[in-house]
Amino acid sequence: MNLPTTEQSVIDSHYMARALELARKGLYTTHPNPRVGCIIVHDGHIIGEGWHERTGEPHAEMHALRTTGDKACGSTVYVTLEPCSYHGHTPPCVHALVTAGVARVVAGTLDPNPKVAGRGLQRLAKAGIDIHSGVLEKEARALNPGFFKRMKYGLPFVRVKLAMSLDGRTAMANGKSQWITGPATRSAVQRLRAEASVVLTGADTVLVDGARLVVCATELGLDEATTALAMSRLPIRVLIDGRLRVPLNAPFFKAGPALVVTCVPSENQFLRGDHEYLVVPCLNGYVDLHSALVALAARDVNEVLVEAGASLAGAFAQQDLVDEYVIFIAGKFLGSTARPLLDWPLEKLADAPRLKITRVRAIGDDWRITAMPVRIVSI
Amino acid sequence: MNLPTTEQSVIDSHYMARALELARKGLYTTHPNPRVGCIIVHDGHIIGEGWHERTGEPHAEMHALRTTGDKACGSTVYVTLEPCSYHGHTPPCVHALVTAGVARVVAGTLDPNPKVAGRGLQRLAKAGIDIHSGVLEKEARALNPGFFKRMKYGLPFVRVKLAMSLDGRTAMANGKSQWITGPATRSAVQRLRAEASVVLTGADTVLVDGARLVVCATELGLDEATTALAMSRLPIRVLIDGRLRVPLNAPFFKAGPALVVTCVPSENQFLRGDHEYLVVPCLNGYVDLHSALVALAARDVNEVLVEAGASLAGAFAQQDLVDEYVIFIAGKFLGSTARPLLDWPLEKLADAPRLKITRVRAIGDDWRITAMPVRIVSI
Repeated sequence: MNLPTTEQSVIDSHYMARALELARKGLYTTHPNPRVGCIIVHDGHIIGEGWHERTGEPHAEMHALRTTGDKACGSTVYVTLEPCSYHGHTPPCVHALVTAGVARVVAGTLDPNPKVAGRGLQRLAKAGIDIHSGVLEKEARALNPGFFKRMKYGLPFVRVKLAMSLDGRTAMANGKSQWITGPATRSAVQRLRAEASVVLTGADTVLVDGARLVVCATELGLDEATTALAMSRLPIRVLIDGRLRVPLNAPFFKAGPALVVTCVPSENQFLRGDHEYLVVPCLNGYVDLHSALVALAARDVNEVLVEAGASLAGAFAQQDLVDEYVIFIAGKFLGSTARPLLDWPLEKLADAPRLKITRVRAIGDDWRITAMPVRIVSI
Repeated sequence: MNLPTTEQSVIDSHYMARALELARKGLYTTHPNPRVGCIIVHDGHIIGEGWHERTGEPHAEMHALRTTGDKACGSTVYVTLEPCSYHGHTPPCVHALVTAGVARVVAGTLDPNPKVAGRGLQRLAKAGIDIHSGVLEKEARALNPGFFKRMKYGLPFVRVKLAMSLDGRTAMANGKSQWITGPATRSAVQRLRAEASVVLTGADTVLVDGARLVVCATELGLDEATTALAMSRLPIRVLIDGRLRVPLNAPFFKAGPALVVTCVPSENQFLRGDHEYLVVPCLNGYVDLHSALVALAARDVNEVLVEAGASLAGAFAQQDLVDEYVIFIAGKFLGSTARPLLDWPLEKLADAPRLKITRVRAIGDDWRITAMPVRIVSI
């Protein structure tokens, strides 16, 4: 049953959209793996569905094949990411697809992992399976911005969360800022934390605000099953503390094991209590943030959520290390003596960095703006 | 044909929505009158439509009656504002409606003008016409925020237009700010000017930026007919110049006749060239803005658009004289040394004014946020 190309493409997009929906179920748990969904279709019926839940467990294709029983023969498999061709924690998916006798495999996008990178689909083609790639590709990549960036550049995707008043201020001159945004924003921030590989902050935020950067089940605003998923894989809490100013009795450390990135000369890595310390080079007396990100990527960190004050967030911005800003805006004016959004002195209008505002949404009484630096490397 | 109340209400809203659409055609021209639309319905057919175009010309009801010929007898009239009962520039509309023999009159809202204030509908009722008021009332009032506020409080509606970067700044420390927003925003600002009774600015903006606050036909981004309407009734350009610092050869004055509000001791009013000077009391060495607004309302000004720098806009904000902020946000960071949105030093978080963000829209690559101070007087 060969359809005209355009009609086949409509049908492919339709099923891939469903596979993407399934992939999203892994939003909180797949780290360091990508989120992947799969559906298996035979004669116009969905006969199998699966999504990858967590590293070490079966891939989306294997979950989907399990639900089809022996009916997969002659079917079409829609998978948001190219099936793997190598033996990692689990056997290669291409092998299972060939064995199941599927007729066609449609991938959202190729796997950027150099161990796969097209070889998965090639192997399927060699086995006589009809292959196709690039269906809803933008969406498939957008689901895993960190995985794609890390595979291509050896760096994690950096999302900077900021909260400001309508006049672009984060706190009064005296530092007072608690709850300028409302409960819906607090939930949204909790979900941003839960989906990140790492939540990262600086010594000032930890010392002055007593920040702990934990994920609270009751504040996620998710249904019970999704909350359980999110709480089963918590992000690594990372503290940038160049001069080791934060004492071990700080609330941040009491909230659980953490990773500290510092540049105090010492051995490369050491432990203090439950906490791991990682030493990276200095830059002008501060932790070199690029080196810190390289070190995190080497530990398979895909997505970093930066929740820091104007200095550290400003340093990420100034060093062009930010991929996305998520700015929550509260309906308030804090006034002209209040603290700036980012410590980033700029002299000339020509130096003002351009951003593309990609999304604006109401979050309770607040608003969330998502913006990307215009120079952004394509990932 | 008596319908159940709920069904009658659905039908009334349906026709009133059309009358509001007509009323909006007067957005740029009716000053100092309110924008009003009218439709006349008979046996489920719209037999007449009209809207008020400008002061001195017929009201919406008269225009609508003209298009019905003698078929208005027994019809229902939907009018966004209560018909007038007094003889102004034109004869009272209630008289014409009675004469035409209409059976029912539905008003969006009562006319707040103390000369009417319910008397229009009362007169119709006395003539045996079925009357009803309060259909899409919120929308009917929102169309004329200035007219309602002036009638109730003797003050115009004050809309402050601001343009800022994503980090809440309006210009670099050196003052450079030209074109931080894009062409779609420039058009939107032109339309805000065109619909205002008055565009108001301060001496600094005129002296430093050479602001003229004119409306340019080619920049309105409107169709030909609407552009012609807008250009036929231009807003009064008002300059707040407490110490008379702006010389008569400034571009602002060369662009046409203007009204200057000052507090330099002198006679109450005087002329210089084509320009009228109005003297109001001082407040801490500056023009008392409340007095200035009272003086403008006394001249039948409904809506004031403030396009000023951080000082004057900040003064309006601090003195609680602002009804609506329209903030255009450009996808840029100007950095932490750049100029603030409003000069408004606040010390305590408890003093931070709350705003309700009522609307957020994409304007080309920029975004427009509309926000109202939460304390707003109901108008």
